[in-house]
Amino acid sequence: MPGKHPYSERYFEDYTAGEIVEFGDESVDEARIVNFAREYDPQAFHIDPVAAARSPFGGLVASGWQTAALMMRMMVDHFVSSHSLGSPGIDELRFLAPVRPGDRLRCRLTVLSTSPSKTKADRGSITQKVEVLNQAGVAVLSCIGRGFYRRRPETPKS
Amino acid sequence: MPGKHPYSERYFEDYTAGEIVEFGDESVDEARIVNFAREYDPQAFHIDPVAAARSPFGGLVASGWQTAALMMRMMVDHFVSSHSLGSPGIDELRFLAPVRPGDRLRCRLTVLSTSPSKTKADRGSITQKVEVLNQAGVAVLSCIGRGFYRRRPETPKS
Repeated sequence: MPGKHPYSERYFEDYTAGEIVEFGDESVDEARIVNFAREYDPQAFHIDPVAAARSPFGGLVASGWQTAALMMRMMVDHFVSSHSLGSPGIDELRFLAPVRPGDRLRCRLTVLSTSPSKTKADRGSITQKVEVLNQAGVAVLSCIGRGFYRRRPETPKS
Repeated sequence: MPGKHPYSERYFEDYTAGEIVEFGDESVDEARIVNFAREYDPQAFHIDPVAAARSPFGGLVASGWQTAALMMRMMVDHFVSSHSLGSPGIDELRFLAPVRPGDRLRCRLTVLSTSPSKTKADRGSITQKVEVLNQAGVAVLSCIGRGFYRRRPETPKS
């Protein structure tokens, strides 16, 4: 179970359009790249360093789906609150630059908009742009995500 | 390394808009769901069957990123050719229905369009809709993906 973090108790009302947050530190080495790719994306340039050296990538690179999964891990560890109700999906997922063994990744998240649900009174949705940056500050992945969050319960009036 | 499949030697020219292909068979059990989620998406409803039973999902569900990764595995095993040059990204990734322990997944892929590169003479891009279906035929995930493929080398004229 992930530990508590500063956003753990946020409700829908606690997110504000324009807010920018940076968080996370995930290291990627050859074993981690190959382990993921053997199960989920066994293309030569993800699992075989020798073949990868001869590929257009010039060396082993992580599956874009692993980079996306690492983004999710950083989101869960540092941003997603316990009042999250999941996500309907992701738009504009872009694999911008290779992730290579030795890279260290972090996230930069921008809240784009917040919107109360029109059909469910207990929740609202947050739309956010997330960029995954490497140790050189180069964006290796970006996407627009949407998440549902519970609204803050009303406090009984005294 | 993935084995050969009927699409292994396809070049850009071999893909046709309107073509529909079904392929893949990936089983998901509790251990596979929990193993992925512990590393990449450790939210309670992905890693803790007891907490998941009390969540809005009513039981353990796979991370949407794992379902996407399983889609990629089925693509690599059955569709992506050895002349693939990677993907710039994905649009309209939608998590449509929960994936639960015991589910068996397959893909239905529709080629939406094909387009020669305007800047690189050696390649073209294929745009495809992919749906992941469970054993009941329910779509659990869908997305629009784009992939680059090498063009067929010209045969020398005699």
